[in-house]
Amino acid sequence: MNRQDLTLLTDLYELTMMQGYYAKGQNEKVIFDVFFRQNPSNNGYSVCAGLDQVIDYIKNLNFTYEDVDYLRGLGIFNEDFLHYLSGFHFSGDIYAIPEGTVIFPKEPILKVIAPIMEAQLVETAILNIINHQSLIATKTSRVVFAANGDGIMEFGLRRAQGPDAGLYGARAAMIGGCVGTSNVLAGKLFDVPVMGTHAHSWIMSFPDEYTAFKNYADMYPDNCTLLVDTYDTLKSGVPNAIRVFQEFKEAGKPFKKYGIRLDSGDLAYLSKEARKMLDEAGFADASICASNDLDEYLLHDLKMQGAAIDSWGVGTNLITSKDCPSFGGVYKLAAIQSEEDGAFEPKIKISENTEKITNPGNKTIYRIYDKTTGKVKADLICFVGETFNTDEDMLLFDPIETWKKTKLSGGSYIMREILVPVFKNGACIYKSPSVMEIAEYCRNEKKTLWDETKRLFYPHQVYVDLSPKLYEVKKSLLDQMSMTD
Amino acid sequence: MNRQDLTLLTDLYELTMMQGYYAKGQNEKVIFDVFFRQNPSNNGYSVCAGLDQVIDYIKNLNFTYEDVDYLRGLGIFNEDFLHYLSGFHFSGDIYAIPEGTVIFPKEPILKVIAPIMEAQLVETAILNIINHQSLIATKTSRVVFAANGDGIMEFGLRRAQGPDAGLYGARAAMIGGCVGTSNVLAGKLFDVPVMGTHAHSWIMSFPDEYTAFKNYADMYPDNCTLLVDTYDTLKSGVPNAIRVFQEFKEAGKPFKKYGIRLDSGDLAYLSKEARKMLDEAGFADASICASNDLDEYLLHDLKMQGAAIDSWGVGTNLITSKDCPSFGGVYKLAAIQSEEDGAFEPKIKISENTEKITNPGNKTIYRIYDKTTGKVKADLICFVGETFNTDEDMLLFDPIETWKKTKLSGGSYIMREILVPVFKNGACIYKSPSVMEIAEYCRNEKKTLWDETKRLFYPHQVYVDLSPKLYEVKKSLLDQMSMTD
Repeated sequence: MNRQDLTLLTDLYELTMMQGYYAKGQNEKVIFDVFFRQNPSNNGYSVCAGLDQVIDYIKNLNFTYEDVDYLRGLGIFNEDFLHYLSGFHFSGDIYAIPEGTVIFPKEPILKVIAPIMEAQLVETAILNIINHQSLIATKTSRVVFAANGDGIMEFGLRRAQGPDAGLYGARAAMIGGCVGTSNVLAGKLFDVPVMGTHAHSWIMSFPDEYTAFKNYADMYPDNCTLLVDTYDTLKSGVPNAIRVFQEFKEAGKPFKKYGIRLDSGDLAYLSKEARKMLDEAGFADASICASNDLDEYLLHDLKMQGAAIDSWGVGTNLITSKDCPSFGGVYKLAAIQSEEDGAFEPKIKISENTEKITNPGNKTIYRIYDKTTGKVKADLICFVGETFNTDEDMLLFDPIETWKKTKLSGGSYIMREILVPVFKNGACIYKSPSVMEIAEYCRNEKKTLWDETKRLFYPHQVYVDLSPKLYEVKKSLLDQMSMTD
Repeated sequence: MNRQDLTLLTDLYELTMMQGYYAKGQNEKVIFDVFFRQNPSNNGYSVCAGLDQVIDYIKNLNFTYEDVDYLRGLGIFNEDFLHYLSGFHFSGDIYAIPEGTVIFPKEPILKVIAPIMEAQLVETAILNIINHQSLIATKTSRVVFAANGDGIMEFGLRRAQGPDAGLYGARAAMIGGCVGTSNVLAGKLFDVPVMGTHAHSWIMSFPDEYTAFKNYADMYPDNCTLLVDTYDTLKSGVPNAIRVFQEFKEAGKPFKKYGIRLDSGDLAYLSKEARKMLDEAGFADASICASNDLDEYLLHDLKMQGAAIDSWGVGTNLITSKDCPSFGGVYKLAAIQSEEDGAFEPKIKISENTEKITNPGNKTIYRIYDKTTGKVKADLICFVGETFNTDEDMLLFDPIETWKKTKLSGGSYIMREILVPVFKNGACIYKSPSVMEIAEYCRNEKKTLWDETKRLFYPHQVYVDLSPKLYEVKKSLLDQMSMTD
């Protein structure tokens, strides 16, 4: 099976609804928004990722003969509809926020404008891809923030939720700020640095630890990182590592990069002791790398306690986003094209929970920056086509607690539209940057956030406001709803 | 890219270690065990799954020209080794516990016997696959247990950690006891039932809820489940559903299966009210299905409160195993074949944490059942080749708290070896059952557990003991270790 053959990666109800629309001859253009309601792990922002895989998915949408045959066998689809499916391709438009951009709850991060049958089909896979990669990119950003400049390596493949979770999780981790991954397939497919040394089994396959170290050092003088905790870190591992480092030094064979890796025990204590031993032996430039069930919380604490660690391998907790393993992206109908005048009629989904009420209409987002600092002041969701004059004052107000207002003085702020066109009439018009380019862009994106927003605990939330016009339309739709109630 | 082309889905260090072994001409046979230390979600058992994908992976191991070229470009592998890789195939043996079997911590659930270079390479992918699918099969078992006979549908694709997590997660969910999945691709690939009806967008795309329901009922009289919470469940959704049910009844067009689905609000209250309304209207046989952030804990509570729900759609929390999103399977060296006599020399990995000390040697597992009840008494880990006479008494003792002893009277128990051969000299000699056959087997497996072990909270843990011979070898290896310390 081809990796891109994900056409049937959809919920059955997308297909039953499609057949329903087909039967009624109902295929007007609609707009669906992808948005999320809360940042994962109570973060102050999220990082969007996955667009390149969404593009692949959309480009390769195509029901094979086998697919159609399988659907026929379910006994719920009629031949007319199956015939339609066999000629299916995506003919709509997609707008999205580029990968690596910092994003906030409630704003549309991807928008599909397409005949309802097409727009419905693609819901599940788009959410699957965007939810997964945005989750891991966001989690990684937290871990990278906690490391405060130290390098984070992604080591989670063996605990990822299946091969794709390892592969695309590594991709998202690179976007979120990792310096490398242990995942060789990710290295090959996404052209990102791969990293790693040896496991306990290497040590155990030699008669003793010293011989295992020496053999490794012989093989890999460019990057000789020795795992020191197989038997006893401070009594055996570190002394044996120092012995090997000394022998190579004396033999006039210096390493390009070298050091030790700790993978168990108390990393704060062991790293400080190991640092002393290495320094006293004249190996102050040997690095200390640590792994073992790390996450941003432990890393933060270890750094507070002065752990002498300069590089970190993070596995399970990053690749599964353990404390929050799902990103709650949803896909909601925002507008239906009117048969009469072709205009998009805004649609709203109400809910007893105010937070769950959707924003109607064909929308875009402007990010508002402070002109002096370059930091994000707020995001403004508005209708496509609304114009703003940054020379004039702007009054921002909270769409729920509308008495909360902020005035931006004309000339003090800059606006940038962050939703960009990706597909136009079914054709892809967007070229994805490389993963390393996205990672660089993401690093710069995070510089536009205040430190208060990047904090791990109780961060300041960035304002996402509605334009007065959008707010009025939403309000009047809500009023209509409650009148008919 | 081919879905099976996972040869590079490995950690870089597996390849750097392989090159190290290659350079030293060191390729003796070794034994690696896959085992886990704790049941996920504090469950009383786990369900193993993923073996069929492991078989596919092993069968398709093969470094393509492109793979070798990529590795060459990393600048750390020499031509001799790359040449070796280009001819690589797996030549070893694999033993495993069949999918769907209930398993317990510390026992080898899969065993690789192969030249060390081969055994090392396959570590990462084997763990990735087994960890993921066993996790979801186990989580599903908990949810199914909480549902106490009601059907559980797997609805999580959009929140799964990437396409594979959705696909193989659905497979594992079927093994764990779901009655169906919304995932169409899983339905096609694994021949499992697919399920689903319509979304809020279906309702919103019609002028009103009644028209949307009526159209759906026209299309799908065989299974007409109407989503009633788009506007107001009790004031609008349920009355409109009843109106449609009535019209079809009066028109003499009864449904094969019909009912309503609740997807928000308080499911206990709403289901009881909806049940009353349906019953009073003469639709006592209409089913009520519920979804919305369900897991085994909420399901358990809703049932305690008498929720009138007979079928449940479970998404995010099942497909990500939200409260415990990783299964801690590890891959540890257990023995190395001696060059002298070809015997396997047991190896042990010590740790300051007693729980983390491995079990040495070439082992197998016998499951011990009570002859009368058919329930599991304990699992016994022993060396391959040890024999036991079930007519004789057996003394079981806890391998850590050795004073804890249980005597089984001769004739009162049955033993079954649960590790079975899967690969022999690189050839697969095992035929995987179909997913539905595995699911059926798993249902029967759970019948061998006491209710006390299946409980959601603080379940009774099943004993996993060592044979006296294995215990003695382990003890003497530990004694040797501490002497050289």
